[in-house]
Amino acid sequence: MPENTAPALRPRTAAGVHPGKPGSQSALRQRNQQRILSALATGGPQTQAELSRQTGLSSATVSNIVREMNGNRLVITEPTTSSGRRALSVRLNDTGAVAVGIDIGRRHVRVVLASLGYRILEEEAVPLPLGHCAEEGMDAAADLLAKLLGQAGVDRAAVLGAGVGIPGPIDRRTGTVVHGAILPEWVGINIREALAERLGTPVHVDNDANLGALAQVTWGPHRGTDNLVFVKVASGIGAGLVINGALFYGHLGITGEIGHATVSEHGVVCRCGNRGCLETVASTSVMIELLSRGAGEPIQTADIVDRAAARDPATLRIIDDAGLAVGRAAANVANTLNPEIIVLGGSLTGLGDTFLAPVRRGFIRHCVPLVGESTQVLMSSLGDRAEALGAAALVLGRHGALLG
Amino acid sequence: MPENTAPALRPRTAAGVHPGKPGSQSALRQRNQQRILSALATGGPQTQAELSRQTGLSSATVSNIVREMNGNRLVITEPTTSSGRRALSVRLNDTGAVAVGIDIGRRHVRVVLASLGYRILEEEAVPLPLGHCAEEGMDAAADLLAKLLGQAGVDRAAVLGAGVGIPGPIDRRTGTVVHGAILPEWVGINIREALAERLGTPVHVDNDANLGALAQVTWGPHRGTDNLVFVKVASGIGAGLVINGALFYGHLGITGEIGHATVSEHGVVCRCGNRGCLETVASTSVMIELLSRGAGEPIQTADIVDRAAARDPATLRIIDDAGLAVGRAAANVANTLNPEIIVLGGSLTGLGDTFLAPVRRGFIRHCVPLVGESTQVLMSSLGDRAEALGAAALVLGRHGALLG
Repeated sequence: MPENTAPALRPRTAAGVHPGKPGSQSALRQRNQQRILSALATGGPQTQAELSRQTGLSSATVSNIVREMNGNRLVITEPTTSSGRRALSVRLNDTGAVAVGIDIGRRHVRVVLASLGYRILEEEAVPLPLGHCAEEGMDAAADLLAKLLGQAGVDRAAVLGAGVGIPGPIDRRTGTVVHGAILPEWVGINIREALAERLGTPVHVDNDANLGALAQVTWGPHRGTDNLVFVKVASGIGAGLVINGALFYGHLGITGEIGHATVSEHGVVCRCGNRGCLETVASTSVMIELLSRGAGEPIQTADIVDRAAARDPATLRIIDDAGLAVGRAAANVANTLNPEIIVLGGSLTGLGDTFLAPVRRGFIRHCVPLVGESTQVLMSSLGDRAEALGAAALVLGRHGALLG
Repeated sequence: MPENTAPALRPRTAAGVHPGKPGSQSALRQRNQQRILSALATGGPQTQAELSRQTGLSSATVSNIVREMNGNRLVITEPTTSSGRRALSVRLNDTGAVAVGIDIGRRHVRVVLASLGYRILEEEAVPLPLGHCAEEGMDAAADLLAKLLGQAGVDRAAVLGAGVGIPGPIDRRTGTVVHGAILPEWVGINIREALAERLGTPVHVDNDANLGALAQVTWGPHRGTDNLVFVKVASGIGAGLVINGALFYGHLGITGEIGHATVSEHGVVCRCGNRGCLETVASTSVMIELLSRGAGEPIQTADIVDRAAARDPATLRIIDDAGLAVGRAAANVANTLNPEIIVLGGSLTGLGDTFLAPVRRGFIRHCVPLVGESTQVLMSSLGDRAEALGAAALVLGRHGALLG
């Protein structure tokens, strides 16, 4: 692991500041800090020498990062002895501050409170009415956060910041939701500013699939994976990309828009303005529409899972068709980026193999053989919590970035 | 920066010795040496005292490293005076060492010699017979290199290394060409070892589209672009990805395989083993096949350009169809990666707008609107030189990496 030699201290107070570029010194430092934090979170208090062994980082790097984290009250250090020598014991200052993760969907808002030690202190989701306006959604998030802070006994001043996941592309130049989002009522609104005012803390807005990807490499079983693609299938379909260990945003932040790959040249018109996009054949909205035809009242996403469990033939066929299409889109991404892992998330994770199997079939069918053989395609183990967890991780990571 | 899994460039003076691990004495020395080289490259000739101020290195360190670089003919030193005192002026020995770039295609091999100052000293391409075996191609490359070194009056000992572009995916675990390459005769051969022996210099093998991308951000007008996709359309179709300013290799090195995106579910069988891949409808091989039907003898790629210039209707239609398909594939990549620039290269660059226009049409048609509007799609200005120039840039970059 290369040494980190260029600490660039930046003020913590700069809300909305961009994190260090992936691959930059500060990104490297942030990853090293996260490794140490993770080691402390999983292994408990330990000496610097032990941290060095556990993380593979040099003792100088561990010492530098621990000193800085101590200064920022992220850890507490105490003199101790190890093998008869003087040593420094390091433990998390777990109650020092919290990060907030918020996931706003078409029909729900979920809020999590996470400690610096990546421990979930509180977590709750509440339903939102379909077609809610942005103000309604933001108010609901603010109310839920106030409730959770009260339950956890955490003062608002201890909130480091809030990450917010939105199911739509975010133009990073303006921090606004771009046309074509799943939440048309939110388009053009500067969520960062509007929510920061309501929550009284710096807000970082990101696409929900990006946060799902971040959750996989932070909270999930794929911690430390360099290249991972998170494919979210819900009312919309999008991917979050972890590249070289960091979320990748491209030029404007409009990455992973695989829901708008054309799969049917003369298909139905998509909300993005094109025709026959993947979303027009494989989103849960389309599945619901197809399965609701002729029924008395529209079914819900949860009904898809229930009907599949009851082996309803039409439901199984529609899941199979959607899975094959998603697998083909995932294959195109894999042929381009050759990631180690593709994780499938969204509102159909409850389907398990019923959905994963056709995705894998479509994937293998359309991959360059070596890529198909060597890429793991898995179902997210974080279920519908991934986006909110990723939102909290965004804050914890940025906190690291701001310190480093 | 992507992890580089291929073996590091070995210093010529210590054959078989790997450069020091990061953190070791020799790694520190290499980093310091690169700082001095960078200072000379950007600031021009200067005294050791000036170098010391500019790099922050002690005068003893600067003096030691300059002495060593002088011995290795990387720099030239001259006595001078500064503020009335005797001093040593140091400048880059631009002709002291050279990097070799080699591009091997189905029908040609091109070799360039580049100085440390990124100046092209010699360049030449020779034809290869179609279906040539790997030995034949490597011998031709070695002969051409010997000729160019003679012309330039450069001793073989001054060759830092050779980058080699191959039109096929390279498995970076083994350094071999993977099944499905445009050069089936080369599959499985360890080109790195076989060529290093012939050329007497360390060899770095890479996919030709990757090198085309590297050339754009190194030699081309897009220097400094963070995210750029180079789409090569020739006998095969592939993309090279520059992400966050560096070539991106993913897990195994099999990135940018857009030639194998399915465009026709029940299309003809592709050399990769799938069906209806982009390459089966838009490669120059397919265009040649279509235009040769009914003709006395097969046409060549150059004929496509000539016929298009003569406004032959069938040729224009086939170019249009291929352009639309390539544009659609480029749109899928842009929807995923949101790069600033997409550069079109390969053997049809001579067609100019005749090819670029349908590519742009297909691109806009299949892009998410904001991505379509904000991405530049351009024809490579480096023509058929891009891959060889990129191969030389690979060596110069690694040389920097070795020193740093």
